[in-house]
Amino acid sequence: MRALNLAPITARPVTNEGKSHMSQEAAATLKPLVLKSQADRRLKKGHLWIYSNEVDTKQSDLKAFEPGEQAQVLNHAGKSLGIATINPSTLICGRLVSRELKYPLNKSLLVHRIKQALALREACFSAPYYRLVYGDSDLLPGLVVDRFGEYLVVQIATAGMEACRDDVVEALQQVLRPTAILLRNDHSARTLEGLPEEVIAIGDVPEAVDLVENGVQFIAPIAEGQKTGWFYDHRENRALLQRLAPGKRVLDVFSYVGGWGVQAAAAGASEVVCVDASEQALDWVGENAAINGLEDRVQGLHGKAVPVLKQLAASDEKFDIVVLDPPAFIKRRKDQKSGEAAYRHINELAMKLLPKDGMLVSASCSMHLQRDTLTEIVRSSARHRDRHAQIFHQGGAGADHPVHPAIVETDYLKAVFARVFMP
Amino acid sequence: MRALNLAPITARPVTNEGKSHMSQEAAATLKPLVLKSQADRRLKKGHLWIYSNEVDTKQSDLKAFEPGEQAQVLNHAGKSLGIATINPSTLICGRLVSRELKYPLNKSLLVHRIKQALALREACFSAPYYRLVYGDSDLLPGLVVDRFGEYLVVQIATAGMEACRDDVVEALQQVLRPTAILLRNDHSARTLEGLPEEVIAIGDVPEAVDLVENGVQFIAPIAEGQKTGWFYDHRENRALLQRLAPGKRVLDVFSYVGGWGVQAAAAGASEVVCVDASEQALDWVGENAAINGLEDRVQGLHGKAVPVLKQLAASDEKFDIVVLDPPAFIKRRKDQKSGEAAYRHINELAMKLLPKDGMLVSASCSMHLQRDTLTEIVRSSARHRDRHAQIFHQGGAGADHPVHPAIVETDYLKAVFARVFMP
Repeated sequence: MRALNLAPITARPVTNEGKSHMSQEAAATLKPLVLKSQADRRLKKGHLWIYSNEVDTKQSDLKAFEPGEQAQVLNHAGKSLGIATINPSTLICGRLVSRELKYPLNKSLLVHRIKQALALREACFSAPYYRLVYGDSDLLPGLVVDRFGEYLVVQIATAGMEACRDDVVEALQQVLRPTAILLRNDHSARTLEGLPEEVIAIGDVPEAVDLVENGVQFIAPIAEGQKTGWFYDHRENRALLQRLAPGKRVLDVFSYVGGWGVQAAAAGASEVVCVDASEQALDWVGENAAINGLEDRVQGLHGKAVPVLKQLAASDEKFDIVVLDPPAFIKRRKDQKSGEAAYRHINELAMKLLPKDGMLVSASCSMHLQRDTLTEIVRSSARHRDRHAQIFHQGGAGADHPVHPAIVETDYLKAVFARVFMP
Repeated sequence: MRALNLAPITARPVTNEGKSHMSQEAAATLKPLVLKSQADRRLKKGHLWIYSNEVDTKQSDLKAFEPGEQAQVLNHAGKSLGIATINPSTLICGRLVSRELKYPLNKSLLVHRIKQALALREACFSAPYYRLVYGDSDLLPGLVVDRFGEYLVVQIATAGMEACRDDVVEALQQVLRPTAILLRNDHSARTLEGLPEEVIAIGDVPEAVDLVENGVQFIAPIAEGQKTGWFYDHRENRALLQRLAPGKRVLDVFSYVGGWGVQAAAAGASEVVCVDASEQALDWVGENAAINGLEDRVQGLHGKAVPVLKQLAASDEKFDIVVLDPPAFIKRRKDQKSGEAAYRHINELAMKLLPKDGMLVSASCSMHLQRDTLTEIVRSSARHRDRHAQIFHQGGAGADHPVHPAIVETDYLKAVFARVFMP
């Protein structure tokens, strides 16, 4: 295993280029954004997004707004619906941040919303390792905050939230008093909003941080890893895997740093094989196995999922439990058909690795893949081999990724637990 | 609290009126049931049901079959699809019990299937309290078996399974060696199949039996209670309630014998109020609270849900967590509109009892109520009061109620966990 260099990233001060704090007085002079007739329906249901074709551009020219500027949203009859941040050049041109004109998006509102978000997490989790803020669902569009004890990793995805970046940092500092904050603003979604891809450290941020999930210790590579460094969303699904794992041989495909596999081993799996296309990820699997004293039962297998699955089948390898937790195969609507085919392909390959009575955990984080479609893929992949699949659990994201009931995009994660046997 | 009389029900021998055991030789002489062209599609997908309008009655007259008789199912091209039990007078006239002609529904197949079902439960649960057999999903159409340690409670719902009743009992005795078996064949679905409503005890069956759910002790009234006496399906949802309950004031509406409420109290709820229209159910709540030493924190409130919820709201009572676990309000398609209105009504009433930041657990066991519709009811009930609802868990039935991926009816249970607050 590669020794990891845990040197801190050089701390950089937060700059304040043009990022003014919104005072309550300033909010009173916000420019109006007038919606077309009927275009307020979605917002009335609780939704937060305004599409550019819903704006009455005769009354309120979108081009008059700076990216990230806050506006007072009015329906066609002139009734105030609240305050939205505006990005004039994006399809979703407005994101409602407040329903009341007296509460613009500023440090004060951020403190309030972060405390509200924290209350849910503290009600559901006993240790400070979770997604603290989950964007729209926590009424903070464009903001994601993952908490790793005393460290916070932040992702800002919209011009509106970016304009309040200093307020975000200050609000987090006020509510949580973290040792350091890492802004992982290096994701591609930002380019759509005209924002630069950058990583900013506030305080001394280590390369990796500790966390505990379902009683198992991990280190997450927050500086160099995927997204915020860890995927908290599958927590409850991994807890169920732990219940199933004792004595079992487990294959963890698309393992990343070993969230599933190391937990299976910790729960008593006899052997775990983690498959990932990234050698670096497998190094982290090794670290995570080692800190739990599980090196002898966890091994990494480097390679892309499809050829590795084929090779394992060709060698007649069998695993009592196969976990498939791929990256999103359907990132955009246009990928629907090819993406579904890719899900189907890996599920069919995985079925070949199951013994006469085995279990498949088939996950998808594509919001465009319907839950029913994934179940159908599992069903048909099993029938294809004359097996019967029983779906004994249909998991989603944990309580730190609450669903906004008016915004289907917030309900993206699926984990189908199937028991597959010869009838 | 009413003292419960735990005298055993008088044991009655199992009668054998016309219930012949199907031998492998007999299976070779089964009458054919020929399907119309294309009518085999559903079965090929793994489904088990044959509708009467799918039978080619010119080639195989349904009237020629006795209720419960087994038949060889042939597609229109004459290919064998397996063996089904037939009920000539019901809409679902056939239920596939086997895909191979050499395995008719008899004691031998029942032993095999019960062992398969048991393997899933033993993989998922550490104690012998669960639904052991869940009908179609365990490839045993018409059969439900709930296990309470050494006691089994059985429900038979189809003429085909009724015809094998002795085999069912003998198979259960062979696999599980229970102290006693209670056949709770007193449910109304049996009349559709032309079966009598009756309760039969095999061995000494007590009025109530012990069980443990999520670490909490209960007694379930198997002889006089609803269905099999206990609803194991909400196990995982109640486990989540336990995580949320410490220090909270909890209202358990449609409490039945206290599955939710007593678990909340056991987990540390400061006060629990159980509401039920049945005084007998509330007596059982009292018993279940008492055996856990929780009498001082659990109280019963007798009455129908709607007037009780209205009365609590009128008295300005508040509960940190409200649980709504009503009976199925939509039993048939024709009840869809009125049923949805009934769900909406109780959810709106429950919202009034929440403080500024509270939780609603809104369940439905109506297979005709879509999950999305229930979420929508929760969303709109919250918006109605200018609250924001975060759906932080979308629960279903536990692993002992696996879903058959080709039979949507097996996926009936929903539990929406919403955190509701003033934004």
